[in-house]
This record gives sequence, C-alpha cells and structure tokens, in this order.
Amino acid sequence: MSPPAPNPDTDPAPADHAGRMARKKAARDKMMTGKTNTKGLLVVHTGPGKGKTTAALGLALRALGHGMRVGIIQFVKGARDSAERQALERFAPLVTIQALGEGFTWETQDRERDLAAARRAWESAQALLADPAYAMVVLDELNIVLRDATLPLESVMEALAARPALQHVVITGRGAPEALIAAADLVTEMSLVKHPLKAGIKAQPGIEF
Amino acid sequence: MSPPAPNPDTDPAPADHAGRMARKKAARDKMMTGKTNTKGLLVVHTGPGKGKTTAALGLALRALGHGMRVGIIQFVKGARDSAERQALERFAPLVTIQALGEGFTWETQDRERDLAAARRAWESAQALLADPAYAMVVLDELNIVLRDATLPLESVMEALAARPALQHVVITGRGAPEALIAAADLVTEMSLVKHPLKAGIKAQPGIEF
Repeated sequence: MSPPAPNPDTDPAPADHAGRMARKKAARDKMMTGKTNTKGLLVVHTGPGKGKTTAALGLALRALGHGMRVGIIQFVKGARDSAERQALERFAPLVTIQALGEGFTWETQDRERDLAAARRAWESAQALLADPAYAMVVLDELNIVLRDATLPLESVMEALAARPALQHVVITGRGAPEALIAAADLVTEMSLVKHPLKAGIKAQPGIEF
Repeated sequence: MSPPAPNPDTDPAPADHAGRMARKKAARDKMMTGKTNTKGLLVVHTGPGKGKTTAALGLALRALGHGMRVGIIQFVKGARDSAERQALERFAPLVTIQALGEGFTWETQDRERDLAAARRAWESAQALLADPAYAMVVLDELNIVLRDATLPLESVMEALAARPALQHVVITGRGAPEALIAAADLVTEMSLVKHPLKAGIKAQPGIEF
C-alpha cells in the first residue's frame, strides 16, 4: 500500500495536530476524574437491530479473559442451537451456559409449553443472580419473555435489585420494558440499517447462528 | 416463583393462541423461502453506542464455535489491552488476533505515529482479506482510521471487493463512511440510551475493557 496523500482539510501541520490532541486529551482526562465507583452494572441491549446477543457474548468473552466467572441463560434459544455453546465450553468450568427456551412463540405454537420453559429458565437465572461467585450473568432474550408476559416483570426487577453488589448483568432482546431501562446503568439500542435477508441471502453459520 | 396471573390482554385462549402463532409461522416460513444465496457478508457495526466491538467479538466466538477460522485486526487498540486476546487465545490456532493500534489519536498526539500504525495494521488486514482460509475477518475500529483519513478509503473498498467469495468481514467503529455502508450487506447502528460514566461510575473490567 502506498501512504495516503496529504489532505490539507484533515491533516493539520504536525505542530497544530499535537496541540489539538493535547487539548482533547486534557478534556478527556478531566472527564474521567471522579469516576470512582465500582459496582455491578445492569446492561441492556435492545432495539430491532442485530448484535444484541452477539454483543452480550462479546462481553462474556471479555469477562472470561479477565478470569471472571460467567453464567448465561438463554430464554428463547433451545439446546439445539449450539455454536456459542460449543465455543464457550472451552472456558469450562469458568462459564456455564443453559439454553432453556423452546424457540420463538411462532415456532412452538403452544402457550403452556412457553410458560413452562420461561419458568424453568427463570429458576436457573434466579440461582445465578443469588450467587456472588458469578461476576457476570447474561440473560439472553429475557426481554422477549417479559414482553410476551410469560414472566412477571416485578419478580425480575426484585431479583435484579437484590443481586450481589459487584455482579454485572447483561439482558438482551427487543422491546425492553421501561422499568428495566429505568433501572439499567448502560442501555444500547441496536437499529437495523441494512439486513441481508431482505436481499435474498439466507441465514449463514457464523453470522445468524 | 409463582406463575404469572392470566392477563386477558396478552394471554389469548389457548386455541386462539395456537391459531395466531400458526399464521405467524406460516408468514415467516414464506418469508424465508427463496433465501438461497450463500456468500461472504460484509457486516458493519457503527453508531455512537456501546457494543460495536463486543458484537464483533460475539460473531467471532460463534464462528469459532462452528470451527471456522477467524482473523482479527485491531486498528486502534494496542497490545496492552488484552482481555479479549487472553480469551481468544484458547481457540488458537483457529484464531489470530493482532492489536496493532497506538490508542486513540488524543492519546498518541503524534500524527506520524498514527499513520505508521494504521499502515502496519492495514498491511496485516490485506493479508487476511487475500486468504480464503479465513472464513471471517474482523477489522476492529477500522472506521476510526478511515474517518481520521489515516488510510485511503479506495484501497480499503478495493480489498473488500476482491476478497474470497465466502469470506465474512466485520468492520466496527463509529462514523462508517457512506461508501462502506453502501457496499455492506448488514449494517447495525448502536445508539447510546444510557451510559454509566455519566453517573460517576468508572470503567470496569468485563464491561469497558
């Protein structure tokens, strides 16, 4: 590759550049001063776009890289969808992953079965939320279950509030309830700008599952 | 946990529910019919919110779970930030990760050093983009380098267009150039709804790094 040609609009003279960046760094350093609290964060990934679950998996990966113990409960995904499980099992016993769903409601077409699955998943989630050994708990697609009213929101909010002080929780799924957003420390909304299924391209391993 | 009380607004009678879900499934199955193309996707995670890099790491994790080979080039992050590297090294030799950045420009305050780092990272990226053994290539924070004009956009677009047909590429960073969005198959914009640094909470392992 040849080096990029100088651009007078974006490439200031070196002296100007250093001065500008020094001011930017000073402003940023000032912003970071006084950020002293350490606490378990409640993180929510919501919105209609892709990346909610994958970003949660990325956080889990990072936490595992720090040697932190991570528990993952999948509320919708069933045990057959297992690429992330395959990958995460390399980190056993630091990680536990339980896929306790029955698929999306339009797949199961059975309200009673959905309710039973949600209850079973929530029982496992409660055990993790009560255990300070877990530095991070991922509740994947919990928002879907809350939206479909298969779990009572109040029980979930109570368990989140009562969890160990340093435990991070990551909750994913579109349509996060307002009470959850209000209680969260970090909320990201994923928006869809462009989607390959609309262009006739089928779901592929490594991207969609 | 006690089972949720029935809610007449959201809990239809079982027979209605099954019928409604059957129609939903039929519509969805129809939508999926005809999605037959398999190709390497160009995926872009942009926007001001969190989750761009972590969602890319999640995609990498899934791809690794499928036994796919993954190459990751980090354009901004330097070698000292290593939680994801620590974690991903469990998948060697299936994964290679190179953190070739020098930090954000306001940290380095040295335009020449930034340019040299960008060029070095891009050379490594080009090698991955020319190698069909890599089923997925992650170019983390490439958008930042493009925005700062430390790399020529045309060279990047050419290398992406010329890559192996089945290779997925995931590009992250705020401010994705329009040409990249136009060429992409899947674009997600991450928006910040709430950020803990604004509440005086400091950056923490497992979440911010």
